[in-house]
Amino acid sequence: MNFEMIQNAAQRLKGHVRHTPLLSSPFLDRIAGRRVLIKPECLQHTGSFKFRGAWSAISALDPEVRNCGVIAFSSGNHAQGIAYAAKRHKAPSVIVMPADAPALKIENTRALGAEVVLYDRENEDRDAIGEALSVERGLTLIRPFDDPQVIAGQGTTGLEIAADAAAMGVTEAELLVPCGGGGLTSGITLACAERAPGLQVRPVEPEGFDDVKRSLETGEIQRNARTSGNICDAIITPQPGNLTFPILKARCGPGITVTEEETLQAVALAFLRLKIVAEPGGAVALAAALTGKASPACETVIAVVSGGNVDPAMFQRALASL
Amino acid sequence: MNFEMIQNAAQRLKGHVRHTPLLSSPFLDRIAGRRVLIKPECLQHTGSFKFRGAWSAISALDPEVRNCGVIAFSSGNHAQGIAYAAKRHKAPSVIVMPADAPALKIENTRALGAEVVLYDRENEDRDAIGEALSVERGLTLIRPFDDPQVIAGQGTTGLEIAADAAAMGVTEAELLVPCGGGGLTSGITLACAERAPGLQVRPVEPEGFDDVKRSLETGEIQRNARTSGNICDAIITPQPGNLTFPILKARCGPGITVTEEETLQAVALAFLRLKIVAEPGGAVALAAALTGKASPACETVIAVVSGGNVDPAMFQRALASL
Repeated sequence: MNFEMIQNAAQRLKGHVRHTPLLSSPFLDRIAGRRVLIKPECLQHTGSFKFRGAWSAISALDPEVRNCGVIAFSSGNHAQGIAYAAKRHKAPSVIVMPADAPALKIENTRALGAEVVLYDRENEDRDAIGEALSVERGLTLIRPFDDPQVIAGQGTTGLEIAADAAAMGVTEAELLVPCGGGGLTSGITLACAERAPGLQVRPVEPEGFDDVKRSLETGEIQRNARTSGNICDAIITPQPGNLTFPILKARCGPGITVTEEETLQAVALAFLRLKIVAEPGGAVALAAALTGKASPACETVIAVVSGGNVDPAMFQRALASL
Repeated sequence: MNFEMIQNAAQRLKGHVRHTPLLSSPFLDRIAGRRVLIKPECLQHTGSFKFRGAWSAISALDPEVRNCGVIAFSSGNHAQGIAYAAKRHKAPSVIVMPADAPALKIENTRALGAEVVLYDRENEDRDAIGEALSVERGLTLIRPFDDPQVIAGQGTTGLEIAADAAAMGVTEAELLVPCGGGGLTSGITLACAERAPGLQVRPVEPEGFDDVKRSLETGEIQRNARTSGNICDAIITPQPGNLTFPILKARCGPGITVTEEETLQAVALAFLRLKIVAEPGGAVALAAALTGKASPACETVIAVVSGGNVDPAMFQRALASL
């Protein structure tokens, strides 16, 4: 896993993945007490950054292998990314999803052409299910974060941030990233280490699901006690990955946690001031920026909004916080 | 008013105005029965395309004149655009607004540093009020659409659409534009005539407020019977402008109208499939694209979403249509 893989992924993604802009609002600057730039990956194809990693991994496969099909297990956004990227490559896809994932995500994944297999998040092991199906049908398993080509694809987000921030004269900043298994955070970390070393990457997690924060503090992989029961479903993962954690440990942190209330407020402010739709899990970094939880040492804070696949009911709950 | 003015405006806007991306969704393509591209000007500074015209007009002023201040009358989005563009130029601004404009727009305009003067939309003449204040205080009046530099600024939207659509291989398409007084529509029309002659610009209006459609049909400026009483407040104007109408008449049309219900459905689908926040008046062109009201002759339809300054209550009403 190295920077060259991110550059190569960027070549394969060109013309297929959306270069999202950096947004801002004087109202958010005022709340944060410093300049806030937002990278809205909710505007990416399928509504999250996951399409980058999906495209990267699928486009890197040997065409004969790819034509046999791919399989993925996911809480939703990775599923949609894989389903759509596979469809655009004319390859079949099977998605193993938790039965309690938001209805919208299950429905969208099916509509994007994937076969969906549901499992019980509390009592079944998605890795085991995924690997069994993979062997049985000759499908290539694409992991949601612990896969070098997936990390390389997510890293292209960092290339765009580095280039666009520099064009605005920003070379020193905190760069806050919503963090589940660490695919996006580690990819951005590798990209910035090479292209924008003045950007300090910090993972942001929901309170009570801070496996990455604790892992960075102790230097060893820590697990979450629970694997469900938070509005930030998109970034609830048991522990950081074996590939992602060493990258995070070497170069980023410290981690930050935010409450559900702070997260819903960030979703509402993204609606009001940026005109973008953020899902709770996608809004935790913006929440950290707006609540002053990051260090105020830097004049600028950049927050990645990693996804926007939120049910209308949850969105209305967020708007009620205004 | 010519193409060169748009090119010059683009030079002045560079680095200050956001180049918004072209968005799309396979779900919207399926609804429309053809390829749909969306130009999300709700992501522009101050939440609408109006910031382009405001920056263009204010940046074109002689510095001494500009430092005395500017004045504008507006249903809201022009007001925010002028207030923020004036602030960024360190010039004072006075905004004359209808007292029934959405609370969010009045509040935002004040927060952006402008002095707000309210008037009664039914019984007072905003032009007279604006011109009186202008003379009294030595402010430069910047009209919301019937001003060459404002039209030139809005036209930069067309330059971006022409370039980005061509990069996607789209040179023939219907290009649907939400139309009030015609500043955005005429600017885009002039830009496309030069840069993308295969894009046919068509103005879209709310049913019952179709002054531009009827003006194009009769070849003479027609007025609306009412000037309020529709959810699309941003594009309710009495009649097309004296500068904008000749441009529209020469090169664009026919006009299209959409109902309030179709408009709210478009706001909801923009939330669900594009992850952007559209206001009703900003969503009428998308509504026309999705309801098949435009001609199906072209394989591609491009819809401008012109603004996103919507109150949470109205947005929740739109979400209820899902």
